[in-house]
Amino acid sequence: MIPVAPPPAPDLATYLGELRAVIEAGLARACPPDAPPLIDEAVRYAVLNGGKRLRPCLTLAVADAVADAARARRVDARWRALPCACAVEMVHTYSLVHDDLPAMDNDDLRRGRATAHVVYGDGLAVLAGDGLLTEAFGVLAESPSRVVPDGVAAAGADERLRAIAVLAAAAGVVGMVGGQAIDLAAAGRVRDRIEPVPDRAALENMHARKTGALIRAAATMGAIATGADDVVIGAIDAYARELGLAFQIIDDVLDVEGSAADLGKTAGKDAASGKPTYPALFGVDVSRRLAIECVARAHAALATANLRGRLAEIATWSLARQT
Amino acid sequence: MIPVAPPPAPDLATYLGELRAVIEAGLARACPPDAPPLIDEAVRYAVLNGGKRLRPCLTLAVADAVADAARARRVDARWRALPCACAVEMVHTYSLVHDDLPAMDNDDLRRGRATAHVVYGDGLAVLAGDGLLTEAFGVLAESPSRVVPDGVAAAGADERLRAIAVLAAAAGVVGMVGGQAIDLAAAGRVRDRIEPVPDRAALENMHARKTGALIRAAATMGAIATGADDVVIGAIDAYARELGLAFQIIDDVLDVEGSAADLGKTAGKDAASGKPTYPALFGVDVSRRLAIECVARAHAALATANLRGRLAEIATWSLARQT
Repeated sequence: MIPVAPPPAPDLATYLGELRAVIEAGLARACPPDAPPLIDEAVRYAVLNGGKRLRPCLTLAVADAVADAARARRVDARWRALPCACAVEMVHTYSLVHDDLPAMDNDDLRRGRATAHVVYGDGLAVLAGDGLLTEAFGVLAESPSRVVPDGVAAAGADERLRAIAVLAAAAGVVGMVGGQAIDLAAAGRVRDRIEPVPDRAALENMHARKTGALIRAAATMGAIATGADDVVIGAIDAYARELGLAFQIIDDVLDVEGSAADLGKTAGKDAASGKPTYPALFGVDVSRRLAIECVARAHAALATANLRGRLAEIATWSLARQT
Repeated sequence: MIPVAPPPAPDLATYLGELRAVIEAGLARACPPDAPPLIDEAVRYAVLNGGKRLRPCLTLAVADAVADAARARRVDARWRALPCACAVEMVHTYSLVHDDLPAMDNDDLRRGRATAHVVYGDGLAVLAGDGLLTEAFGVLAESPSRVVPDGVAAAGADERLRAIAVLAAAAGVVGMVGGQAIDLAAAGRVRDRIEPVPDRAALENMHARKTGALIRAAATMGAIATGADDVVIGAIDAYARELGLAFQIIDDVLDVEGSAADLGKTAGKDAASGKPTYPALFGVDVSRRLAIECVARAHAALATANLRGRLAEIATWSLARQT
């Protein structure tokens, strides 16, 4: 008897599309049903926006990889990780809503749509961001979580507490908020503070906090929620640190090279605002080479814990993406 | 032998001062030591401000009452409840920082000091609020919590998760953020939305969300963290609902009657901005009577769970306070 070959693995785009469908359904359930109509509308406008969902895809892809390594069922791992995935995307979305405010980056266009403060005014945009940040922790702490169907087994209490602590540390004053404060000061937007133009170390410190910390949290929370041991969690963290830096460098490069239509946001904005970027410090070619080196280190980190498959592909894809 | 009379109970002000000392020490430890200097300074400016600490005092007073009823040690109950007390005050402080922004209430003075956005600019004030909100959940989730000394026993994982869920629900889009959105729309500050002047039911709905929900969370988290059963938690919740409403009514009355020096904020601000208030709807005398009725119901709620002592005194004091 001739053995039947397994079906070809779906390509990465199909895989990510499958994860995104799970995430979109979770996010639609993440907004509590009994909020006042106006804030409910603003929160949904911000979060149900057809974004790439990079961070929650990473959470679920890590859950898949951990399940594969443990020969456990992917579907169970995904349900356990879904509250983490939704919470990470809600935190990411809140940070964009606040970052787009006139008091911060003053951006009118995001993912090809008017930003929340343009539609609802600055005050309600502040509140919508506050609400998303708060509900992210609600989604993780409540039992059962509103983002999963009835009867699905949740992660254990200790894992959920650890995931909440990881998210708070990544998003808080040591992580994302701290990085945004450094960025704001570097752009001369903090009263009476003149900050020097950063060098490479300062730029990497800022990005490690501003975008890197949340990407690392997205990945490690996927591992924590699915019961991975500390060796695997450490490998995932190292992988995500390099992936996050590669994403940031390519983002900066695309901002120089891209158009508003491709990016769904105002192109050339970083350079125009005098923001420190990789291309500004190193030029486009060296920046791309730095990103390639990050991806090589990401692959090496996966190998240390014998994690294969989609996570490596995601890292490679981060270099080739056009948006 | 003549029995020695017990020493007189310290008066309420002394008791609250004792709780405040515990809270201030906790809040000083609540800011992570490794945040970038600028955001660290802004967060500390906002939270270490010599406020009344009503909400965290309530958390610790509930912990004391639960410990007394169970004949347990107050000191253990206070340490278990302290992360909750600090988290509630951090959430309250973040809401003030954002509420004072020009895009919201546009207040320059708070507790007799310049508001955060006046000192640091709007962008960093947004970030300081975001950081406080995020770190509040970090304080609750991390183990051991940074706000308690080494070696102190924490509440169990299930209690801590429940406390996080209670805080998120109270502070989120159904609770505080939802109430602020209603308030913002009523003040005509949301683009293209004209909301009707609210009646009593609408005013109570708005206050129940905007200020009541967090006061209820402050009290119930104190009971949850100290292992109270659901009957006691329910009685505490009913008590705090009435206490919160009494506080709100008296706040509105003091805004009409007080001076900026007494209040530490701009007096007459609510009336000047056309905000709906109890005195505006009912006059000062009827408003005070409504507050007295709330306190009577708060006392009755305590009696149902046989909780005595300071909690009843706090409710009575809420009527007499001048600031």
